[in-house]
Order: sequence, then structure tokens, then C-alpha cells
Amino acid sequence: MTDFEVRNPDYEKNVRAALEAQGFMKLLGVEVAEVGPGACTLAVDYRDELCQHNGLFHGGLVGTLADNAAAAAAATLVAPGWTVLTAEYKINLLAPGMGQRLEVRSRVIRPGRTLTVCESNAFAIDGEAERHCAVAHATIMNLEL
Amino acid sequence: MTDFEVRNPDYEKNVRAALEAQGFMKLLGVEVAEVGPGACTLAVDYRDELCQHNGLFHGGLVGTLADNAAAAAAATLVAPGWTVLTAEYKINLLAPGMGQRLEVRSRVIRPGRTLTVCESNAFAIDGEAERHCAVAHATIMNLEL
Amino acid sequence: MTDFEVRNPDYEKNVRAALEAQGFMKLLGVEVAEVGPGACTLAVDYRDELCQHNGLFHGGLVGTLADNAAAAAAATLVAPGWTVLTAEYKINLLAPGMGQRLEVRSRVIRPGRTLTVCESNAFAIDGEAERHCAVAHATIMNLEL
Amino acid sequence: MTDFEVRNPDYEKNVRAALEAQGFMKLLGVEVAEVGPGACTLAVDYRDELCQHNGLFHGGLVGTLADNAAAAAAATLVAPGWTVLTAEYKINLLAPGMGQRLEVRSRVIRPGRTLTVCESNAFAIDGEAERHCAVAHATIMNLEL
Repeated sequence: MTDFEVRNPDYEKNVRAALEAQGFMKLLGVEVAEVGPGACTLAVDYRDELCQHNGLFHGGLVGTLADNAAAAAAATLVAPGWTVLTAEYKINLLAPGMGQRLEVRSRVIRPGRTLTVCESNAFAIDGEAERHCAVAHATIMNLEL
Repeated sequence: MTDFEVRNPDYEKNVRAALEAQGFMKLLGVEVAEVGPGACTLAVDYRDELCQHNGLFHGGLVGTLADNAAAAAAATLVAPGWTVLTAEYKINLLAPGMGQRLEVRSRVIRPGRTLTVCESNAFAIDGEAERHCAVAHATIMNLEL
Repeated sequence: MTDFEVRNPDYEKNVRAALEAQGFMKLLGVEVAEVGPGACTLAVDYRDELCQHNGLFHGGLVGTLADNAAAAAAATLVAPGWTVLTAEYKINLLAPGMGQRLEVRSRVIRPGRTLTVCESNAFAIDGEAERHCAVAHATIMNLEL
Repeated sequence: MTDFEVRNPDYEKNVRAALEAQGFMKLLGVEVAEVGPGACTLAVDYRDELCQHNGLFHGGLVGTLADNAAAAAAATLVAPGWTVLTAEYKINLLAPGMGQRLEVRSRVIRPGRTLTVCESNAFAIDGEAERHCAVAHATIMNLEL
């Protein structure tokens, strides 16, 4: 496991503020569960309106959190005055997203000056049990503002 | 362009019903703009709550529509008693999603018995202008119920 | 279809020279069938040593040509003194790669200052018939030397 | 880490035989370094003909090994009379592939009846040092012969 160099001491405040300013995160009711150096966890509690017709968390929701958690994980490592932008992401849905809560944990696997690559893992949580329901890789571009 | 074999004469009704039964599609306010053999277009009109903090359509929204339109396009070709499930999708964000409307058009590029591959293209529409803002490939699994 | 701006009048010579300098392209016996603005086609003729055990072109070969044709297509658009590097690619194998020749045609779908996105399509050619056997998207990074 | 159920006691022999029967693996000089339940490692030693013009392992080679190691990892878990086929793979190139040896280690992250998802990690090895140079996810289809 890599130790990451943090370039902006205010990274957590900035990343939380950026996530909370997104209308889409509010609509989905996303909770910022954790922000650390090169890492971010986003979560939602079960609501029918986050699901497919069969009560499973919607794959698009899982992808949205995987993308957003990855961008946030990358953003924890940028210098002051820089921001991030998702270039691409790819997600494999591994198992039905069934549970009371969906948690998506992302971490940087390769920090770069221009491009940062992150891995996101999604878990559907039901009481004590958690099921690994998706895995994603995202390429995040670092941009000077 | 391939002509696809339609196995279920009720495909349009079924696909529209499946999309409309999804709580997540209601939450996002997704319009089913077109359903045809091997094709589906989904759209949303601009709302702040579909956006990032800067007023651009959220990448997770674009990915959600790219996934869902692909699954719907694949579903138009299944036999009665079969359904579909997204195995994976990958999206490249090409340009900022800026406009009054977001349209995602998906079409089957390879129908299969077990797996169907679709391509989705996203366009941000502003008056007469439309900007190609994302492209995705999705692998959809066909399942007998 | 976009008309691309060519920044280096020597682009074709440079791209061909870069491809021909790769030991791996020589090992595979790759022919540079076409280089144009924002486009490149690579091809190989059938040899047992390019195949799986069952005489089909190997998926890794198809992926290699999809990646390399994409990088070459992106390289046709860079300014003098710049080069390219593949950041990521994703390939869907659509049909068995069976034929006397494999052609992979790539084109830029979004040129950018830092990142260029390309689409590659692979065709297995048997006499007059050609079968679409794979589709790929690649993200190519443009770098100043 | 999951313990995988092995359905075919001859899995190692079968997987090695399938890899060794591929002309493309011979052309590349690929060594089957390890085959275990849900896991496979492939490796090559440095040769100019496996490289780009600058002496780095070619991205297409890395992708080929990532794909093939993933398919082999999935194949260790199939029942007698079944085989595997790559549906798609996506690879992020993280760092230059520079070293005396390239090792690609793949493991199943989600075994399934129809689809198995694998993760492959590529390492460029130089003496004692190893550099993580690529990560890939692959979707492998299981087929009854």
C-alpha cells in the first residue's frame, strides 16, 4: 500500500465541499462517509427511488458513486488551485446490489501529475453481511484552474 | 447497419414498462424518447439537481443513462420470458455536458444469445446545437426468467 | 464526421516511422495499411503463430492492434515535438476472429490537447466477406517531448 | 480472499495445455509461471521484439498477458467439458513497463456460472524491484463444449 503525498492541507474540507455542492449528490442523498489521503467512501441508505423495479440498487447509481468516489479520492492529492475531471470509468457489476445500504470505497492506485487512476469497490450491506457487488477503474484528469 | 430480428412483438411495451417501473428513472425524471428494434434513446431536461456544482450534467447521470439505454436496447431483442442484466459498461466523457437537454442514444452492435454488446452516445443539446459529450460500450447479459 | 486539424505536415512519415521502429510490430508482422488525419489502419495476414489453439486470431493480438492503431491515429494530430502514450483501452470481442487477414481501423472520436479518445474496429477478412470481430475505445495521452 | 471451488481435478494440466497450444503464446515466448485455483501468472523475459521503439514492454503485450492470464484464471474453475472465452477486457497502463521481466498475475474476483470476472496486475521486474505497471479487469464467458 502506497503512502500518498498530500499537497493541500485543506484537502478534506475542499473535497467535502465540492461533493456537497453537487445537486446530483443531494438528489441521490449521498453521504460522504470518509475522506482520507488518496481515498474516499460514499454511501446511500436504501430508498425505493434508488432502485430498479426489483428493489436492487440501480447499476447507474452504483456507477455514479464509483465515479464520484474515484474523482474525490484523486482530488485529495491535488495541489491548491487544481481540480479534477473524470476522463473515463469502467464498472463490472458482480452481484445484485441488495441491502439496506450501499457503500462505495475508492482509493488511488496510481497518482500522477496529469492522470490519476483509482479503483472503486461497491458493497451492498445488510446487517452484518456485506456483499461485494461491483468493481470499477477510473481515469481522473488533474487540471490547473 | 444490421437489421435485427425481433423475437417478441410486445418488445416496445415491455421495455417501456420495465423502464417506467424503476424508481431510479422516476427520481431522475428520465423520458423514454425512443424504443425501436435494437435501439433506445433516453433523455432528461436540465435541472440543477442533475448537475455537478458548475451546472454541467453529472458524469454519473450520463453513465446511468448510457447503461440503462444500452440495457433497454438489448432488451428489445430478447425472446418472450427473457430479461436482461448489465454485466459491465465503460464510458469515456468527451466534452462538458452543457445544455438544456441530455439525450443518450444506444444501439445494439452485436446481438448474442447470452451476451449483447451495445454502444451508447450522449449528446448535450442547446437549442439547435448538439455536442457529443460521451461514448460508452456495455455488455448486457440475456437471462431466461 | 469531423475534419481534423493537422499540426504537423510530416505526420504520416512520423507515425509510420514510429510504428516501424517497434520491435513488437515486427514480431507480429504488422502492416501499416493506412495513415490519414485522425485515422490509422493496421493489418496482419493469417499465420498460425498469431492464433489461439483453434486457429482464430488471438484476442491479445486484436487488442494490441486496437491499441496501437488508436495511438497512431491520435499521433497524426499532435504538434511537432509531441508524442503519444496509451493511458487505457477497453475492447469487446464480438465474434470469432476467423479469416485470412485481420484489419483494425482506428479513428479519433475526440481530439484534445491532453487526451485524445479513439475508436478501433477489428475485422476478420475472408475473401470478400468481412466480419466485425471487435470494438475498442482508447484514451491516448499527448505529451510534449 | 475467497476460496474457490475447483470442479475439475485436472484443471492445472488442462489450463497449461490450452496455453501451450496457442501459437501466439509461443511467438511471444510466454512462460506459465503459476496456475492455481482461480489464479494464473504469465511472464516473459525481456527481448527487444517485445518492446516499443524505446525499450519498454509494449502495451499490447501487457494487454495480451492480462487477457490471457485472466482467461486462464477463470478456466481453472470450470467443470469438465467446459471452456472459456474472453468477452471483454479493459486495461489501465499505470507506469512504463521497464525491466528484465514482465509478470502478469491474474485472479478471479467473481466466479459465475456464465460469466467470471478477473483482475490482472502487471509488474515490470528489475532485479529486486518490481513496478506495478498495469491493472486490468476482464469478463470471461464460460461455455459448455
